[in-house]
Order: sequence, then C-alpha cells, then structure tokens
Amino acid sequence: MTYYPLTEATAAAHLATIPVIGAVLGGTPADWTVREVGDGNLNLVFLVSGPEGGVAAKQALPYVRLVGESWPLPLSRAYYERLALADQARLAPDRVPALLHHDDDMALTIMEFLTPHRTLRGALVEGLRYPHLADHLAQFLADTLFRTSDLAVPVATKKARIAAYLGNVAMCRITEDLIFDEPYFDAPMNAHSVGLDDIVAAFRSDIPLRLAAQGMKARFLAAPEALLHGDLHTGSVMVTAHDSKVIDPEFAFYGPIGFDVGMILGNLWIAALAEPGLRPDGPSDGWLLAQADRLWAGFADRFAAHWRGLDPKIESGSLHALARRDSALLEAAITTRLDQIWRDALGFAGCEIIRRILGLAHVADFESIADVERRAGCERQALLFARDILVRRDALTDIGPVHRLLDPACVAP
Amino acid sequence: MTYYPLTEATAAAHLATIPVIGAVLGGTPADWTVREVGDGNLNLVFLVSGPEGGVAAKQALPYVRLVGESWPLPLSRAYYERLALADQARLAPDRVPALLHHDDDMALTIMEFLTPHRTLRGALVEGLRYPHLADHLAQFLADTLFRTSDLAVPVATKKARIAAYLGNVAMCRITEDLIFDEPYFDAPMNAHSVGLDDIVAAFRSDIPLRLAAQGMKARFLAAPEALLHGDLHTGSVMVTAHDSKVIDPEFAFYGPIGFDVGMILGNLWIAALAEPGLRPDGPSDGWLLAQADRLWAGFADRFAAHWRGLDPKIESGSLHALARRDSALLEAAITTRLDQIWRDALGFAGCEIIRRILGLAHVADFESIADVERRAGCERQALLFARDILVRRDALTDIGPVHRLLDPACVAP
Repeated sequence: MTYYPLTEATAAAHLATIPVIGAVLGGTPADWTVREVGDGNLNLVFLVSGPEGGVAAKQALPYVRLVGESWPLPLSRAYYERLALADQARLAPDRVPALLHHDDDMALTIMEFLTPHRTLRGALVEGLRYPHLADHLAQFLADTLFRTSDLAVPVATKKARIAAYLGNVAMCRITEDLIFDEPYFDAPMNAHSVGLDDIVAAFRSDIPLRLAAQGMKARFLAAPEALLHGDLHTGSVMVTAHDSKVIDPEFAFYGPIGFDVGMILGNLWIAALAEPGLRPDGPSDGWLLAQADRLWAGFADRFAAHWRGLDPKIESGSLHALARRDSALLEAAITTRLDQIWRDALGFAGCEIIRRILGLAHVADFESIADVERRAGCERQALLFARDILVRRDALTDIGPVHRLLDPACVAP
Repeated sequence: MTYYPLTEATAAAHLATIPVIGAVLGGTPADWTVREVGDGNLNLVFLVSGPEGGVAAKQALPYVRLVGESWPLPLSRAYYERLALADQARLAPDRVPALLHHDDDMALTIMEFLTPHRTLRGALVEGLRYPHLADHLAQFLADTLFRTSDLAVPVATKKARIAAYLGNVAMCRITEDLIFDEPYFDAPMNAHSVGLDDIVAAFRSDIPLRLAAQGMKARFLAAPEALLHGDLHTGSVMVTAHDSKVIDPEFAFYGPIGFDVGMILGNLWIAALAEPGLRPDGPSDGWLLAQADRLWAGFADRFAAHWRGLDPKIESGSLHALARRDSALLEAAITTRLDQIWRDALGFAGCEIIRRILGLAHVADFESIADVERRAGCERQALLFARDILVRRDALTDIGPVHRLLDPACVAP
C-alpha cells in the first residue's frame, strides 16, 4: 500500500478493507460516520462510528500540521507510536487505548475509541476535577518507567529495546529544539504575550538559566534510562470520572525517567498557575497542587514497591544486581534514585513551563485567559516559578518546598 | 571462513592467504617468525616478522582466556574492536596502530607491528619515564571523546553510531560485573592480599561507598555521551620515548566521557601508589602525579579548544546549538561540562582502583611488590584514597585537592 493521506470522504472506504476494523464498527461503510478531529499539532485523527462500535484512526502527515508542508516530518513516527502503544499495553494495560490495527506504509494506527473521555487539558481549563487522575498517572509512570529500566530489565534486552527506538530521531529533535533551545533565543517561530518583553529579554541573557536548560538537554540526549512516552502533557491524557488513558506516544524513545515525570508535573503546575487567570473570582481550592503532590508521592511509592518486589527467581536488571544482596543498600538505593529522578523532573518541568509561554507551542491553559493583562501576569508568575525550579533543582529536594513557592500565586490571584 | 583458533604453528599459513599481509611481511611464510605473546586476559596475540616488516595479529577466543572455557565470551568483540580501531584512526590517527586487515568470521584483526613500543604498565613498574606520555594521552582522549559527542556530531549521525556499538553487550557486561559489583560482595573470583581482611569487610558493608559505586554503574549503563575506548588502563597503552599508542579497544561503546578519563587517571594513581612499595629506598620524584596533572589539564584544554573551534560552516552537535550563539554561554558551558566530566572521572577512577585490589583482575603495579606486608600497605592506602575520591567526588572539584590526598603516600612510604 502506497501512502496517501485519508480524508473524511475516503477514510471509511479504506477502513472497510481491514476486516478487524469492519468487525468492530459493524454494518457497512454506508452506516459509518467519520469525523476528522485532529486538534494536535502533527496528525490527522478520524473518529469513526458504526452500528456496533467506534474506532480512532490516527494517520501521520509527512509534515508538521501546525506549521505546514514547509516543515517536513517523517511518517516513521507512526511506526514508533504503535511500537510504544504495544509496549505500554504490556506494561500498563489499563492506562492506554487498545491498539486494534496498524499499517506502517500508510502511517496509520487504529485504536479503541475512548468514550466518554475528553482531553485533560480542556477539562482542567474548565475547572473540572477527577478523583482518580493522580493515581492513574502515577500508575502509568511507575509501571512504564520502572519496568523498562535497568532495574527491571536484563541488560541485553534493555539495549535491544534502546536500539529499537533509536531511529525516532526526528521526533526527539523537535523536543531538543523547541523545549531546550528556541525559548532561549529569538527563534523565528517563538511567540509571547504582550507585556512580557522585559522578562523575555532577561531570560535570553540569563546564563545560569540557559546553562540549566542546556544541562537538561544533555540529559535528554544521552540518558536512556527507560522507555519514555516523550510528550506527556495534559493534552496527551484522556479522562472520565472513572478512567484515565495516556495517548499519542509518537515521541517515544529511551530517555531519562524524570522527563515524563517532569513533563506531566509541569503541565499540572501550568494549570495551577493559569487558574487565578481563568477563575479570578474564587480562591483556588488547591486541587491541582494536591494532585501534583499525590502524583509524585504515588509514583515514588509505586516505583519503590516495584523495586522491592522484584522476583528473585526472575533475572532482573543490572542495576539491581548488588542491591538485591542487601536490604539496607536496597533502601538507600531507592532513596538515591528517587532523589535523582526528582531533580531531573524539576528541571524538565521548568523547561516545559518556559517553552509553553515563550516558544512555538502554547497551551490552552494560558491562552484561554481572556484578559490580556491578567494572562501576562499569570505567565510572568509561571516564568519566575519555572526559572526557580530549573536553576535551583538541586536545592529543592522535595515537592513541599516547590509548592510553597507556588501557593501564593495559585491561592490568591 | 569458519572460525578456528590459530596457533604459532598455523598462523603463518593463514596469514599467507591474505595478500596485503604477505606484502607487508615480504618473502614467503618459510621466512616468517611467529610468536604468541598474548599476556592479556582475553585473546591470542601473534607477533609475526618477515624480511620486509612485521604485523600484530589478534584473534579472539570464544571464552575468557584468564579464566578458561567455563566463561564463554562472544567472538563479536573482534568486530567491535576493528570498528573502534577504524573510528579512532579517523579521530586520532597518530595515537592508534594502523588497521591492516580484519576477518570477522575468524575474529581476527591484523595491525601494524608497534616497535620498539612496550606496554606502559610494565614500563611504569620499572620506573621508566616518558616525556610525551601525558600529552599523547590527553590528545587521544580529547580527540576521540569530543569528536564523537553531542557537541561535535549531528544527532542523527550520533544515534546511528550509538546503535552501531549497542550490540557489544558482553564486553560491557564484564565491566558492569567486575568493576561495579563484584568488589563489593564476596564474589567467587575475587582475591585480595593477606592483611586486608578488615578493610575488605568494611568496604562490603559500607553503604555510602557501595551506593557511590552503583551510581557510577548507572552512568556506565545509560549515558552514551561519546565513543569510549572502554578499557583505557596502562596495559592498553604502548610507549616509546617519542610515541604513545592506544590499543585493544574491544570494550568500545558509547558511554560517559569520564569513564575513559577516569580509567587512565586511576591507573596512573595506582602506579603512584605502588611506587613506594616498588622503590622503597628513594623518595618519589613526583613524576607520576605530574603526569596525571598534565593529562587532565591537557585534556581539558584540548576539549575546550575543540569546542571553541567548531567550524560554524559545518553542522555541529545538538549540544552546541545554543552555545554557538553566545560566547559567554559557551565559556560557561565549557566550564560546566568539564566539571561534570571531572566528577565522573573521579568516581570511575575510584572504582577502578578498588577493583584492581579486591576483584578478579589485579595489576602488576601492586603484584610486583615482593614484600607482602609492604604490598598490603600500599594497597590499603590505595583503597582509602579510592574510597575518598569516589564518595567525595562532588567536593573534590579539581585535581589539586585530590593530589594533596595522595602526596604523603607517594612521597614518603
């Protein structure tokens, strides 16, 4: 099959050629409705409903959708996405959509239709709350990250998996450029709110800040600790009152564990920092920070429990070889490793917050604040917070002190 | 060609089938002399001389020579060695032997016959001095490590090179086990001198020390910063009064830059710590520590010069993308990066010293001290020094303070 991009008009006929998808949808293509809903930056997404059920069909375009054909991007990202979906389905089956079909030539991945799920970012902008969210995210992080790390996986297998994802260069390159470099100089596609020129200029000549961002980039480039989702912001999470699913792992590769953790924490902090702008009348209920607390604590507990629970009868990873002989060493190693993940997570969270305000890809949390001055005020607070956690990540040894930096902004706009 | 191990009796006939080698040697196989001289732990090495010249033919055995057939080791290490020799010949041509021929099926690598070179370790045991040694080693380190890093190499090329070496799992596994794990528990193949039982026991219940060693192991496992030699001890260096060559890169892989730097510094420090035992009558002339000083300073200067000298017309590495826009940032980034390499190097040097005294593979520096008590005294001093630099590597921010820890031991036995 030669690649061609599907449209709302042609998608049904194409899906009808795939028996397993026809069976999920039921009826005939004439009975199916197709809606293209891709609101992300990169791909086509078709939601297809039939008499028996629905599917979500995601197709990569040979360029970045947000920018256009002038920015080519390889279709191979669909291959890495379905590779990661399959790995994640094994590692954390409740937390990802079921993979129904893939076609590497068409760069097409067909998944379970998540319903009545909605995107977490949009829900947070509306001020909605989800009681299980933090636990679900902690579970996804601990299960995918621990179970692909040198703690759990024998070294030959681990290196083969690193190799399997090493070709996803173009997607990693987007992160390298957009998160770690472009916010720190006057890159052509950058944008920022009116009223921030002074802090933008200050950031672009701030050596400690830029060094810190480059330090995080060095970790991103050369620390294949575990299989990362690679783009775990609140737009990559679909939620209901009872369920949370992580989608869109096309940035997947082996990288530093703190990247996924920091990316999602950074986006929860963005939501918290936008709240006084979005809902200026009421004081914050503190729910967002409580979720960040719960997510980090839940991740740390579950990561530690996975480590303590490694089955001595099954070969574990190279980094467990000494610790398994000595429970005192094991406990010290757990503490040390979680400290290191925390420091990385803080650094990556800081980078993420800054790039969402100064770089190319902005977020609805801030963009939905109608009052321009109020928006700039929230963004300024967020930039100062982000700089603080990035530059002082070695001194902020737990989430409590971090939230004490943030509380006044979020509680009292 | 099916693999079979060569012998002194069969090597000439085999080499005669390789025209390029026949041409180097001259005459006919009847005119050649063959000596098997492999004194390492792993391989066969044949020195072959003919009327016109000589070659060194290295052949891997399917097991670890030091231990025997009970410890199998894949022949593929010969493939990685010739891959690394070819890369190093491009990166630092004066510092490696010329690669003349390779045969992956025979696990055979034929190189330039280095003469009148001898092994650096043996020369140091005899107290010999080499005026250019430190400069040559600094050059090898800076040229191979900088030029394969994310500073110099575009990211797609870098990741392809990481992948090319990722299969050298078995060799990395030797390092993981022998350097980072086995010295810290009662592994069956460990050995140590009489008189050290107390410090051996103390080390094996020393949580900060073992945590630090495991921290270095984590870096070794997941920090593909540059193409490493992977086994750069003084037995892997061949010297004359005018030349120094680095041999035996069969442990090559992409790892942390500080590993190669720390391995060779650690072995210079071993030589310095053995000196009072080998030559108890005279005070040390301080030459060995001066070489360590000169090697580190030379490496740092050359690494920085390579970075500053990146050609703006040629695409450089991802980690140079921001720094190239701002000379103040560049200078700060150089300092920061060298600090990080130094800390890693100290940690790896500490691990190397400890494993050479407590693990499987000991070194001639200490083994050549005839007086058993004196030897144990030098080894004890070395263990305490190694523990110090490994555990306190974040506080020992330059080589001066490290040498102040060492001076009394080396100057006055």
